Amino acid sequence: MSGIDAPEDLKKLHVEDLPQLCSELRQYIIGTLATHPGHLASGLGVVELTVALHYVFNTPDDKLVWDVGHQSYAHKILTGRREKFQTIRTYGGISGFPRMDESEYDAFGTGHSSTSISAALGMATASKLQGNSVRQHIAVIGDGSMTGGEAFEALNNAGVSKSNILVVLNDNGISIDKAVGGLSRYLVRVIASRRYNRLKERVWRRMGGDSTEDKRKESKRMVRGMSRFTKSVKTALMGGANLFESLGFRYFGPIDGHEVEMLVLVLEQLKEINGPKLLHIVTKKGKGLRMAERNPVVYHAPGKFDVETGKQIASASGESQPPKYQDVFGQTIIELAEQNSAIVGVTPAMPTGCSLNRMMERMPSRTFDVGIAEQHAVTFSAGLSAQGLLPFCNIYSSFMQRAYDQIIHDVALQHLNVVMCLDRAGLVGEDGATHHGVFDLAYLRPIPGLTVCAPMNEHELRNMMYTAQLPNQGPVVIRYPRGKGVLEDWHNEMESIPVGKGRCVREGSDVAILTLGHIGNNALAAAEAVEELSVAVYDMRYLKPLDTDLLSDVLSKGYRKIITVEDGVVAGGFGSAVLEYFASMGATTKVSLLGIPDNFVPHGSIAQLQHECGIDVDGIIKDVRSL
Amino acid sequence: MSGIDAPEDLKKLHVEDLPQLCSELRQYIIGTLATHPGHLASGLGVVELTVALHYVFNTPDDKLVWDVGHQSYAHKILTGRREKFQTIRTYGGISGFPRMDESEYDAFGTGHSSTSISAALGMATASKLQGNSVRQHIAVIGDGSMTGGEAFEALNNAGVSKSNILVVLNDNGISIDKAVGGLSRYLVRVIASRRYNRLKERVWRRMGGDSTEDKRKESKRMVRGMSRFTKSVKTALMGGANLFESLGFRYFGPIDGHEVEMLVLVLEQLKEINGPKLLHIVTKKGKGLRMAERNPVVYHAPGKFDVETGKQIASASGESQPPKYQDVFGQTIIELAEQNSAIVGVTPAMPTGCSLNRMMERMPSRTFDVGIAEQHAVTFSAGLSAQGLLPFCNIYSSFMQRAYDQIIHDVALQHLNVVMCLDRAGLVGEDGATHHGVFDLAYLRPIPGLTVCAPMNEHELRNMMYTAQLPNQGPVVIRYPRGKGVLEDWHNEMESIPVGKGRCVREGSDVAILTLGHIGNNALAAAEAVEELSVAVYDMRYLKPLDTDLLSDVLSKGYRKIITVEDGVVAGGFGSAVLEYFASMGATTKVSLLGIPDNFVPHGSIAQLQHECGIDVDGIIKDVRSL
Repeated sequence: MSGIDAPEDLKKLHVEDLPQLCSELRQYIIGTLATHPGHLASGLGVVELTVALHYVFNTPDDKLVWDVGHQSYAHKILTGRREKFQTIRTYGGISGFPRMDESEYDAFGTGHSSTSISAALGMATASKLQGNSVRQHIAVIGDGSMTGGEAFEALNNAGVSKSNILVVLNDNGISIDKAVGGLSRYLVRVIASRRYNRLKERVWRRMGGDSTEDKRKESKRMVRGMSRFTKSVKTALMGGANLFESLGFRYFGPIDGHEVEMLVLVLEQLKEINGPKLLHIVTKKGKGLRMAERNPVVYHAPGKFDVETGKQIASASGESQPPKYQDVFGQTIIELAEQNSAIVGVTPAMPTGCSLNRMMERMPSRTFDVGIAEQHAVTFSAGLSAQGLLPFCNIYSSFMQRAYDQIIHDVALQHLNVVMCLDRAGLVGEDGATHHGVFDLAYLRPIPGLTVCAPMNEHELRNMMYTAQLPNQGPVVIRYPRGKGVLEDWHNEMESIPVGKGRCVREGSDVAILTLGHIGNNALAAAEAVEELSVAVYDMRYLKPLDTDLLSDVLSKGYRKIITVEDGVVAGGFGSAVLEYFASMGATTKVSLLGIPDNFVPHGSIAQLQHECGIDVDGIIKDVRSL
Repeated sequence: MSGIDAPEDLKKLHVEDLPQLCSELRQYIIGTLATHPGHLASGLGVVELTVALHYVFNTPDDKLVWDVGHQSYAHKILTGRREKFQTIRTYGGISGFPRMDESEYDAFGTGHSSTSISAALGMATASKLQGNSVRQHIAVIGDGSMTGGEAFEALNNAGVSKSNILVVLNDNGISIDKAVGGLSRYLVRVIASRRYNRLKERVWRRMGGDSTEDKRKESKRMVRGMSRFTKSVKTALMGGANLFESLGFRYFGPIDGHEVEMLVLVLEQLKEINGPKLLHIVTKKGKGLRMAERNPVVYHAPGKFDVETGKQIASASGESQPPKYQDVFGQTIIELAEQNSAIVGVTPAMPTGCSLNRMMERMPSRTFDVGIAEQHAVTFSAGLSAQGLLPFCNIYSSFMQRAYDQIIHDVALQHLNVVMCLDRAGLVGEDGATHHGVFDLAYLRPIPGLTVCAPMNEHELRNMMYTAQLPNQGPVVIRYPRGKGVLEDWHNEMESIPVGKGRCVREGSDVAILTLGHIGNNALAAAEAVEELSVAVYDMRYLKPLDTDLLSDVLSKGYRKIITVEDGVVAGGFGSAVLEYFASMGATTKVSLLGIPDNFVPHGSIAQLQHECGIDVDGIIKDVRSL
């Protein structure tokens, strides 16, 4: 692996050397991620595919798009980022996802799922218009991502194009949790059919070898003489998957995605075929690290682990610590559902990530993983509510951008009782620009009839959830951050809080800081640190309805300056709402708006990013002092 | 028809009376819409289906969801809204779409496409949890809407549920324009297969009649003795559509959707079958009005027409009038594309609605109708741009809510040169709450790196389009309203305008009105009408980047009051952006924000709705005078 700085180096290898390269790559990924946490299992599953793609295709002229992009680690290592791989997901280091500005080999940036076919089709269409009939455009997409509606929209469009697009369906039965739905069951049936079991055998037999030893020995000759086998391979691989053929794709597969030589052989054939085609490969998420293979959900992003055994390394001492907000949600919804039989849980493919898996275990009939399908998740919740149930639909803040129209059109317009819990709101850290949940306050605020709140700590989260499930609350959004809360003794007796009412958490007379949600803890720390001024802190709790009584009260106190602090974009967000109210009152107090500035925030630790945005404790202190 | 005030009245009819009822219904719809413009062709296509559904199912206990809802007119007439139908789409009258608050028979509100299966599945899931195994949940969805990703997400989820959901696929080969894509071609193949041609014949033969006369005579006996035929009907209808079966649905059809007795027979059978099932019916959009059948695209919403001949009635005299903004777009993109070979056009199923059909005719290889697929349309455009082309992607403002994540994640984050033209921005009038394009300014403003502008007239639109296609402009949004512009002599020589720069369109010294886009014409008229004050009007042109130089200049002039006017929501919109800048400057001028208030705006004429929102000329005058 050491001599491979670009795919052209890879191409100098003999095909029989590729398994060894795959093994080294895999060890390098495992070795690095053991101490530099990242997305492990996805990457391990596509090592052979990655090597085969770069071996066969003429990247970067041929375009390679990795759906979601968790699985692009081997790709990054093979395309000039072997050394930099040590910096992955760290501030200033390389991204955990493909990024066009990071390498010419990253043909299209990803992070959210189900975009790859659309992007590859766009590129393929452009190439065709530009008169290039040779260039190939490849989308690698998992079976989980394939359930996202955009992927279907793209298949529907691509199927009638005559563009050179190759969709590689990387079928491992897992999205992050276990893949669900009709498509998933269908793929299981396809794989289970005799066709697949016999295929490999038949192809190898045609090529003159059927044991592993023979294969190795013969592989060189095989690949050289490949054209001879074109017809038989095509025949063996085609047919039997009407779903994709229905839409106009030529379907090939399924084949074992860990047989790199086989992959090379098949891809060489597909390269020569024009028009839309789909190759179905079967892989194992976590391949090569036994514990990851056994538990790909945990090893999706395991944190630090022992490189030999794969065992996760606990990050902290035995001391008691505040829980993660997601776990407070996961525990609280069970408590509420036990009392309120109308409550059901909905998640689009994130039961583990949002801790709804606990309810799923306890109340399987009342918890729904609908697949990677944010749009459907929200309208499905609206349907549940229309029929008298009370869904808690949990979606990461940045993924909720996918269901924006459904919030407006299906939930808010009909004023249905749906509780939308936005996990991973605010800066999320290492996942970076695609995953920061910083737009939610701004995009939710314009929606009429929506209640939008954010808890400053675990008790508040529990109380907001309790309040949201009281009768006829209409649509409610509760947004809370990734990671830990602030209270060790978090398990309070829940009580309702007045909707649309904030609270003063620290009295003061010179400056008032108005905040919303968890970031208020930074504001409080800042207020306490500035000894020379008397600084009040107001936890507004609700973005909508805004507590205009409290704001009037704040105005009436004659502060020399008012500062708003939010962990979302300033443009149109919480501070902006405060300004609108002040303008309607004809207020003239100086207001300073702290939050995410008008640019995309990169990856790094949350602390580093908060500092960059000026919403860490120091940043707030600075603004308080700049009277 | 006159005695039918609810489905229970309908159920008293004999099945052989239903064709007559259908005929009367159809005439009533045609007669009404001839003078009360609305969506014609869709409604005419489902008259028989509507009658059959209400005849067979126990609505409103059984739940009936109309995808998009254009086609719900017969449903409205049969469910207690026969008289009110005369008020359809007028201010204070009934809506052109199903609305839960309008009737208990409207199980779920629609307007945007592809939501019905999600909603029906939610309801079906709720019924199951509530222990009701009898209730049926029906989604009626067109083949066009079926291409929308959310529909696929829902099919994928529903296919593995055991819920009582019946999807009626209303296949007419048309969305609003001709349906496109792999799914559409697939359905054509299914219908063309011998199975369909022979089916009707076989079923009728089994039931003892094969001429129309015999059918009528026998129908009563047939329906009574229907159970005898269960098996044969099921056998005849099942199989042959693997796409839906792949996802776990039981597929039935295709059958002729204009044979109401046949539909009754089949639906009676399906009612008894538990679990997810799909009935594929074939209908003709515009059925019963020859001109509409021949040209369903024009007759989607034809305006007033002659009730006998169907001929459209031209709305105006021979005098020259300003063109529609959409036509200015449609003409201008051709002019630009003739000069700039990188330009391509993209529309998700709206070539006629946005006038991209002109380019489609002139430059078919450079114009792409991708189906009802807003998400895909935007990422596809991003892919085109990544490969060096310059897509103009035209999407109605309210439909762009569907692609919000794609604008952020695929276009803006990668700073790709994509021009997004948002037609139907602002209040759209008769289509009402689901279709008003009033959120766009607020949801676009938080996105980093996006240029957002709005033309005050046709010249501005052309110049903004010209400017957007200059090299390396990054992502640009141009939003403009439904309907006519203001210039008869609209075809100017295009020129570039400075990005992010506004202009003073009227000098004044007492009050300044700041506006954005077409609504600025109201502001100008208001300024001219208030003779006792000197009122300046600034057309800011760009929401983003905001012209802070001009704003500073405005501040420095010491106006007694500044008013912002926009045809979008006030919360987080243009006025809010102005406030943010003023706050950053420590300005203390009184600012009044006019725009859409924080509630959903109903349907009515644009003038009525602007008045309701206080952004018509009178509303602005009033605010100017309330110094």
